[in-house]
Amino acid sequence: MIRVGILGATGYAGAELVRILRGHPDVEIAVITSRQYAGVSFSDVYPAMRGIMDMPCREYHIDHFVNQVDVVFTALPHKLPMSVVPELMAHQIKVVDLSADFRFRNVPVYEKHYQHHTAGKLSESAVYGLSEIHAEKIRTASLIGNPGCYPTSLLLPLIPLIAHKMVKTGSIIADAKSGVSGAGRSISLGTHFCEVNESFKAYKVADHRHIPEMEENLSIAAKEPVQITFVPHLVPMTRGMLTTIYAELCQPASENDIREHLESYYHDRYFIRICREGIFPDVSHVKTTNFCDIGLKVDKRNNRIVLVSVIDNLVKGAAGQAVQNMNLMMGLDERTGLDSVPLPV
Amino acid sequence: MIRVGILGATGYAGAELVRILRGHPDVEIAVITSRQYAGVSFSDVYPAMRGIMDMPCREYHIDHFVNQVDVVFTALPHKLPMSVVPELMAHQIKVVDLSADFRFRNVPVYEKHYQHHTAGKLSESAVYGLSEIHAEKIRTASLIGNPGCYPTSLLLPLIPLIAHKMVKTGSIIADAKSGVSGAGRSISLGTHFCEVNESFKAYKVADHRHIPEMEENLSIAAKEPVQITFVPHLVPMTRGMLTTIYAELCQPASENDIREHLESYYHDRYFIRICREGIFPDVSHVKTTNFCDIGLKVDKRNNRIVLVSVIDNLVKGAAGQAVQNMNLMMGLDERTGLDSVPLPV
Amino acid sequence: MIRVGILGATGYAGAELVRILRGHPDVEIAVITSRQYAGVSFSDVYPAMRGIMDMPCREYHIDHFVNQVDVVFTALPHKLPMSVVPELMAHQIKVVDLSADFRFRNVPVYEKHYQHHTAGKLSESAVYGLSEIHAEKIRTASLIGNPGCYPTSLLLPLIPLIAHKMVKTGSIIADAKSGVSGAGRSISLGTHFCEVNESFKAYKVADHRHIPEMEENLSIAAKEPVQITFVPHLVPMTRGMLTTIYAELCQPASENDIREHLESYYHDRYFIRICREGIFPDVSHVKTTNFCDIGLKVDKRNNRIVLVSVIDNLVKGAAGQAVQNMNLMMGLDERTGLDSVPLPV
Amino acid sequence: MIRVGILGATGYAGAELVRILRGHPDVEIAVITSRQYAGVSFSDVYPAMRGIMDMPCREYHIDHFVNQVDVVFTALPHKLPMSVVPELMAHQIKVVDLSADFRFRNVPVYEKHYQHHTAGKLSESAVYGLSEIHAEKIRTASLIGNPGCYPTSLLLPLIPLIAHKMVKTGSIIADAKSGVSGAGRSISLGTHFCEVNESFKAYKVADHRHIPEMEENLSIAAKEPVQITFVPHLVPMTRGMLTTIYAELCQPASENDIREHLESYYHDRYFIRICREGIFPDVSHVKTTNFCDIGLKVDKRNNRIVLVSVIDNLVKGAAGQAVQNMNLMMGLDERTGLDSVPLPV
Repeated sequence: MIRVGILGATGYAGAELVRILRGHPDVEIAVITSRQYAGVSFSDVYPAMRGIMDMPCREYHIDHFVNQVDVVFTALPHKLPMSVVPELMAHQIKVVDLSADFRFRNVPVYEKHYQHHTAGKLSESAVYGLSEIHAEKIRTASLIGNPGCYPTSLLLPLIPLIAHKMVKTGSIIADAKSGVSGAGRSISLGTHFCEVNESFKAYKVADHRHIPEMEENLSIAAKEPVQITFVPHLVPMTRGMLTTIYAELCQPASENDIREHLESYYHDRYFIRICREGIFPDVSHVKTTNFCDIGLKVDKRNNRIVLVSVIDNLVKGAAGQAVQNMNLMMGLDERTGLDSVPLPV
Repeated sequence: MIRVGILGATGYAGAELVRILRGHPDVEIAVITSRQYAGVSFSDVYPAMRGIMDMPCREYHIDHFVNQVDVVFTALPHKLPMSVVPELMAHQIKVVDLSADFRFRNVPVYEKHYQHHTAGKLSESAVYGLSEIHAEKIRTASLIGNPGCYPTSLLLPLIPLIAHKMVKTGSIIADAKSGVSGAGRSISLGTHFCEVNESFKAYKVADHRHIPEMEENLSIAAKEPVQITFVPHLVPMTRGMLTTIYAELCQPASENDIREHLESYYHDRYFIRICREGIFPDVSHVKTTNFCDIGLKVDKRNNRIVLVSVIDNLVKGAAGQAVQNMNLMMGLDERTGLDSVPLPV
Repeated sequence: MIRVGILGATGYAGAELVRILRGHPDVEIAVITSRQYAGVSFSDVYPAMRGIMDMPCREYHIDHFVNQVDVVFTALPHKLPMSVVPELMAHQIKVVDLSADFRFRNVPVYEKHYQHHTAGKLSESAVYGLSEIHAEKIRTASLIGNPGCYPTSLLLPLIPLIAHKMVKTGSIIADAKSGVSGAGRSISLGTHFCEVNESFKAYKVADHRHIPEMEENLSIAAKEPVQITFVPHLVPMTRGMLTTIYAELCQPASENDIREHLESYYHDRYFIRICREGIFPDVSHVKTTNFCDIGLKVDKRNNRIVLVSVIDNLVKGAAGQAVQNMNLMMGLDERTGLDSVPLPV
Repeated sequence: MIRVGILGATGYAGAELVRILRGHPDVEIAVITSRQYAGVSFSDVYPAMRGIMDMPCREYHIDHFVNQVDVVFTALPHKLPMSVVPELMAHQIKVVDLSADFRFRNVPVYEKHYQHHTAGKLSESAVYGLSEIHAEKIRTASLIGNPGCYPTSLLLPLIPLIAHKMVKTGSIIADAKSGVSGAGRSISLGTHFCEVNESFKAYKVADHRHIPEMEENLSIAAKEPVQITFVPHLVPMTRGMLTTIYAELCQPASENDIREHLESYYHDRYFIRICREGIFPDVSHVKTTNFCDIGLKVDKRNNRIVLVSVIDNLVKGAAGQAVQNMNLMMGLDERTGLDSVPLPV
């Protein structure tokens, strides 16, 4: 059994880690932490888990981890991981960090959009955990910077095309829509039911912190600098993310050619499903699962391609992909513990 | 492996059966039927299931079942099961019927509220599949009349008290609230998004067909005739059911005494969770699970008890309890295939 | 023009007062206050109101009101009104208070369930603003204790029956369901979108502070002490409240008799609509309006009556009834400013 | 008083016409029709309207209109209006048609995307009812082709820029999101509550029938052919539409310059509100109103502008704009009957 620890277990991403890892056949959850709920049973915070996960949350202390866990998941706000991860790694504990702290190879970019980095060297050697793209590197990594939800939903459909020079790098526009759980469990007027329900809005228009993360990874795939226009929106639903991507084709291409390219690129990747012609994905089709469904349409009149991807922001966009990365790091089948059957409704 | 067939697999209860049984470690789904989608792959009806359940739906014919399946689940509208179940049973196939056709021991009551029964004898010998109450009989049954969702949510909290003469049989009032999936997948103005969203209403006030089913089973438990007032309501949510039950206490009793009685009554029943003092259940705590959570409060001033139960109407209220019954019939642990970890949100 | 002031204008009840009064043909809003948003334009707090209500919010000070307003609406948390209302009234300003501070004739009851009352004498002389029941007294009042939302939804259907000795006073059970706006605009985990959406729960079971308010007014109507069992629930919708009331009939009565009694009792009251036989009200039918729709059913088998009432908790349950009371106090038609046409969806 | 008739009064757009016109101070509703509900009182179809609009729905017959109405609103499915509008106009009745039948100056384009047009001449002479853009022509028109909801949300923010050669005509991409009422009141699996709730999807990707309507009107404004890429999405909410528009700037321009251009273009148009810097519109801010709120952001790095517009699809996107057009045609202030105060929630 792989012994794991979860830091920040009572936020939505942390609780989703608990959900998935509690059902993982090769994992034992050894310790969970929560600043807000230290000393409180997990099932008192999430009563759904009564009888299933009654373990108390603890304050973080390195002694609870050394020799007790093999892997730690950090589901903490940005900035906190950079202070604890070096310590954990010094004790041969593998880490999957769900914050932005270890997502950037280019640390100055991180520092421009987030804050000063106190573990920049470590960041440079971390592996970006986009599982389908970097599986080989992930298998031998000790530290994973787990991708953001928006980057995951954008990079998975786009990298195969951009790596193959099929779309113009300067033409990419992404219009993303996220469920409310992406905002986390912290309370604010912006997540008040009456402010979100029957509402729809754009936010951080062309100004979201996930943009440099997306651009760094697109640029790596394209082997040239890529800049995009990105606008996220908030949808009155709990889970799910849909990203609609627009790009000009480098050369006229049939929809079939592009679909086949995507299918071939991902042909052995269980969690990527390419939709058939005329079919477009719906976030409800991937809810609670680790799938990323991708649909596409060539707008011939305008020589553009439209890609539509959906993920569950808490699963493939956070906890699920983190567990997929752990599976890869620990030599397991990437699907282990992530193959729950989807809900019909 | 137990080979199962599912009749009516594309309705919400049928699709939920597919979901649960597809993940059941001891089950193989051998055949699924659908009148509306005969010849269509299940995953074309429910795209969430692509790659997971691509089996085509068939028209029902007895030849698809004889020697091919051990158990059949019938998730059909009332009246259809009574015409196919005798045929299936004649071929030694066990049946769990999710309609009302085999829920009544008293066939004239069925006929009064539904229609003429063409297999009344069979109904009288069927076992009412309220798993926690009738586990012994279910283990040896060949035909289960699986309970309705409202009856399940009402009977589980109430039977322990009524069987023990703790509440007055003439005083019971139940106010129930159901998510929209209880109305099924058939289209109607009443399930149009814009008519249900931001709406809340009572329907079939004191006049719902589940009342005789509840009263028959309460009367059996009480060993005297029991009549109740029952009002269902429609909640703008997909899954879930909450029933608030009011009854007069036969004798003054402390909340603690009653809680202990319930805990003792259900002490080894995994799927029943009695809430601690001051805690009341929320449908979101049991969503996608087979749990029934029960909370209670004694209103001392009025010598009444208030019981609050929650279930997922599609799981414990339909497909989940059906699988639990199959587990019991086939000698498996009742939890097999039903122990998915609950969702935090 | 009637000059009005609104204290606490940026909470949901306060903002609903702004909405209604801004459209009232005989009213001019002279001053609005908000502790949290003092100095901020109302339309910066509620961008929907841009160009329509750009007036800045102020801190409360008596000088802003003396000789500047004729009527003040206080939409403040309990306890604050009792400190400002005496001061306002000393300057001949009429007051409609939306808190509980002036709802009780029996001040010790208020003090038991809320806190020490520093203006108890004033409370005893205030008029309980249940418009349809106390219109005569309201017309000559200077201070109105505007009813709570739950009490309004319960008292309007029940008082006609209880005043006429048609139902047994000891048998009343009320099961109420409210939209989330009833919890106000303050942020808390309990109103986080992800915690409320796809959720349904009971709260303050048989223990809500509105119970003594309901019982005081039922007792006055019945001319004998009345006690009830009352359980509120939270519905995943923004506006609306439905209350289902169960009571034993004193004598067998036909549904028609009771319907006629209700129609006759309210025959000239525009905002009360009694549903026809077989029709039950839906909160969506009264959304954004000041109507209270009432449906009923006699459960003959059990000699009980079931009453179902719906209101918009922010309108008839708060701001709308407050304006209706102001209309009565100021000699206007009670409908003035409250006759907007209902929304089809 | 202006006497109006409404054809197709029981669909959502028709019922919204009833709502607005019933509250219009200068209008009397003389006749309403409904094929499905002929003979039924409007308030039996929409119980919210009980006591307010109890008029029966009729079958359409020209005799009910001649000499009885001054204006007719046709809220019928495409194709039906072209058969009744000529007849109405022959009797000097002015018409505002909410279908696509009279929106196109270029009839062959209509015929390509809809069907054969039996009143093509009439269509060529009709006025496209985008109120803020074509007010002058509307004032003297007898027949208005009322714009589609998507075209309204796209054209209002875009025409001022495209008419002024500020954006490249070949670069326009529009990503639109609509509430479910846009799909109408007809029942279908696609509007079933459980299929829409907690769901989000794209549909008719780069293939929606509103595209030619948008392109015709953009081309007229640009005085050159304009083609766009347009993708609509379905949001789990009842009312509202948000469109995010991306375009390349012809020349670098500051956000301020563009904002001032928009403000100046619409400076006397009550229903257009341009958001301040850093503020973006939310559909909840225009719900039930005739406003179109527009926000913008210059993505300097990519020399693109992002425009975000919101409307209530049933008001400015249908019935509200239709009434605004009637006001203009009949010489009234365009705001008459359309100035209800917005809802805070």
